[in-house]
Amino acid sequence: MLHNDQLEHWDRENFFHPSTHLAGFARGNQPHRVLTGGSGCHIEDRDGNRLLDAFAGLYCVNAGYGRAPIAEAIADQAKELAYYHAYVGHGTEASITLAKMVLDRAPDHMSKVYFGLSGSDANETNIKLIWYCNNILGRPEKKKIISRWRGYHGSGLMTGSLTGLELFHKKFDLPLSQVVHTDAPYYFRRSNRDQTESEFVAECVASLEALIDREGADTIAAFIGEPVLGTGGIVPPPEGYWPAIQAVLERHDILLIADEVVTGFGRLGTMFGSDHYGMRPDLITIAKGLTSAYAPLSGSIVSDRMWKVLERGTDENGPIGHGWTYSAHPIGAAAGVANLKLLDSLGLIENAGSVGSYLNATMRDALTEHPHVGDVRGEGMLCAVEFVADKVGHRFFDAADKIGPQIAGKLLEQDNIIARAMPQGDILGFAPPFCLTREEADQVVAGTVRAVTSVLG
Amino acid sequence: MLHNDQLEHWDRENFFHPSTHLAGFARGNQPHRVLTGGSGCHIEDRDGNRLLDAFAGLYCVNAGYGRAPIAEAIADQAKELAYYHAYVGHGTEASITLAKMVLDRAPDHMSKVYFGLSGSDANETNIKLIWYCNNILGRPEKKKIISRWRGYHGSGLMTGSLTGLELFHKKFDLPLSQVVHTDAPYYFRRSNRDQTESEFVAECVASLEALIDREGADTIAAFIGEPVLGTGGIVPPPEGYWPAIQAVLERHDILLIADEVVTGFGRLGTMFGSDHYGMRPDLITIAKGLTSAYAPLSGSIVSDRMWKVLERGTDENGPIGHGWTYSAHPIGAAAGVANLKLLDSLGLIENAGSVGSYLNATMRDALTEHPHVGDVRGEGMLCAVEFVADKVGHRFFDAADKIGPQIAGKLLEQDNIIARAMPQGDILGFAPPFCLTREEADQVVAGTVRAVTSVLG
Ligand SMILES: Cc1ncc(COP(=O)(O)O)c(C=O)c1O
Ligand SMILES: Cc1ncc(COP(=O)(O)O)c(C=O)c1O
Repeated sequence: MLHNDQLEHWDRENFFHPSTHLAGFARGNQPHRVLTGGSGCHIEDRDGNRLLDAFAGLYCVNAGYGRAPIAEAIADQAKELAYYHAYVGHGTEASITLAKMVLDRAPDHMSKVYFGLSGSDANETNIKLIWYCNNILGRPEKKKIISRWRGYHGSGLMTGSLTGLELFHKKFDLPLSQVVHTDAPYYFRRSNRDQTESEFVAECVASLEALIDREGADTIAAFIGEPVLGTGGIVPPPEGYWPAIQAVLERHDILLIADEVVTGFGRLGTMFGSDHYGMRPDLITIAKGLTSAYAPLSGSIVSDRMWKVLERGTDENGPIGHGWTYSAHPIGAAAGVANLKLLDSLGLIENAGSVGSYLNATMRDALTEHPHVGDVRGEGMLCAVEFVADKVGHRFFDAADKIGPQIAGKLLEQDNIIARAMPQGDILGFAPPFCLTREEADQVVAGTVRAVTSVLG
Repeated sequence: MLHNDQLEHWDRENFFHPSTHLAGFARGNQPHRVLTGGSGCHIEDRDGNRLLDAFAGLYCVNAGYGRAPIAEAIADQAKELAYYHAYVGHGTEASITLAKMVLDRAPDHMSKVYFGLSGSDANETNIKLIWYCNNILGRPEKKKIISRWRGYHGSGLMTGSLTGLELFHKKFDLPLSQVVHTDAPYYFRRSNRDQTESEFVAECVASLEALIDREGADTIAAFIGEPVLGTGGIVPPPEGYWPAIQAVLERHDILLIADEVVTGFGRLGTMFGSDHYGMRPDLITIAKGLTSAYAPLSGSIVSDRMWKVLERGTDENGPIGHGWTYSAHPIGAAAGVANLKLLDSLGLIENAGSVGSYLNATMRDALTEHPHVGDVRGEGMLCAVEFVADKVGHRFFDAADKIGPQIAGKLLEQDNIIARAMPQGDILGFAPPFCLTREEADQVVAGTVRAVTSVLG
């Protein structure tokens, strides 16, 4: 075993961490933490800290840490056959079984699943498939993708363009021109404070209609959205939003991509967010919850309607020129099969629904009255607390004050609880593993109250 | 255990395979194969076939199949801690150790490694970093990327644009406008048959210079190339190519990305292709050989020079807005550490060099005289045989005759040996695991001769 200080030195000298202040980390001014184990909702580091991870990694360790059946499935697959590719009809028992299990769980009108590695690459695949289909259908101009401000769909060049958050665009020349953005369905941040929820939905719809008019429906291929906005602030849609949006899309023959990287496989207490909100997507993006992050695996679930066009495309053009070396990687597939079985056998999706409601209700009761808490919201095992400088005047804090990060820091320091300061706004996000207990939910709420009080009085 | 016919049914009903004729596969006209195990250079399927895999998966299972030390490292990591993210300075002993091991092996002027999942996403990361750096350096117009025709750099929207192969562009609206292509250094396919190798290199250089002139050097950020063209036909560069190209790039302040997804970690018998050809890249793309495909992991190795700009960028702008949920995934990192150790302890890189030379020499001796063999070429554990309709007139076969795929098919059918019909041209490619023995090399050559004779007489 290596010494901590040697590891720290290696880390700062060699390791380019994602989403990190690179100069600060290299200089030693940013924290370095080495994780060594975990169980249920807790993780442990090399310094002996045991932390309650109320964000499940990056809302992905849905089954919880230390799940022996998933680890064993990975170990068995690694021993049997760690890798063979899935090109031209090759597969493993695990990858084929997982394809079947995904389709058994997906909405009825879905047909096939393409497996990738990350949520980002699955959204890349989605765009490629949509462009391909519109070329096959003889409408080569219908290519733009509409995304929402505050959406999060990845960190690539095109997927980072879909993402509607400043941090992911700044200095990267994004968004690229193929992507256009429309309003976030963020009722709490509506500009007209007098609007009812349904008036606000009508405004979102009108604004989408205006965008489509401006661009021309015959230039727009698809609309992508998370059932519940995630990284943009954990914002469930206002009542009636999805049916209203979908009606517009159908009218203009615009495909719907439901990005269920966060919501897929149970986070809202239902198998998919599409089930939860009555969405009827043409493509569903899956990742995180598919394997509970035990191994990298993502997917694009394709509807019957699109699959038929893809078939026609390969009949006309031969094999489709798309693939990653590690598409349907056997280790990821084995993890996925074991994970989906475990969600079923332990009833974890029901638990996400019931304890998630409890967490949300308890958080609301504890914090709604606080003078700097503007909103407590959530759905299933997702919850967010948004802070305001002035509740009556609906004024936000200056971003430079870093109120959200300060509160997350206090929560970690005082109570060893991990929540996430969401990147745009002062919003504390919670997305615990589905196995969270009511006692743990109580700890999270109590710790949050203490942290809020420490920072804001 | 499931029945084969049930698995086949599930497969055709649910599984969207990469690079496959989708309609044919769904209809049952394309082969379905379920892999169950492997050892050394051999894989096994559920029907009891044992195949010599002379393409190492997709030139990635460099250490060979069934390596217990890598499987055990994966199993141990899965049990200990399958996942935690690497954002804002988090890591595991495996990911930090691997970062150190990569930098120990990389050219001296490299500084840090960012870990992703696939070769494609690593090239995405490279472009994002280059754009970011040129924004920090105050030259926002310097953004285009030059790639080569026949290069392969991925299958995403931007990375598929870098790729210079028709199959990956057709019906996908690629390449995107940020990418421009220059000549492939493919001496065997030169248009002027009278050129010497050095005259041909001078032509490649002139053509690059002309492209830079046309576009304007101040609009061009980087040049990307594989040390040896891989999927484009397994084509080692003509003598003197890389130094000549590099001189042009330096003169115009254009960065060099060495895409070492295939060549990195020993395939040419040296640690990197950059070492082999005296390249001095600003970024090195790694994937496949990093883990021998036992788990998905890729990387972007960043030079000192670029790292300094990235540090300045985060000092000026805060944390960098780039990251994949599964960046530096612990399972991949554990596989990488065990794999790099195994390459060392078994001397597999030397074996790639020596048995690779033997394979290339033997193949050349056996096939050069064949009237339809135009070229036998390779480097290290890479080898290709290119077929021609007419050797003297240097005429190629009609693509519709599928000579390459036919020969690959015969080789599999007659001798249970897997080689790859490269996608553009009639080229049979070999890229065996590094543990190939001379006896296995002899089998590969003998089988290839039989297959060539069966198809072409
Ligand atoms: C909704 C959504 N889509 C896509 C992604 C991208 O996934 P990945 O980080 O695996 O590329 C994320 C990641 O957080 C996400 O939340
Ligand atoms: C040179 C090169 N770069 C990049 C890639 C893309 O890697 P991946 O398939 O893991 O995305 C490949 C894949 O074959 C490759 O050969």
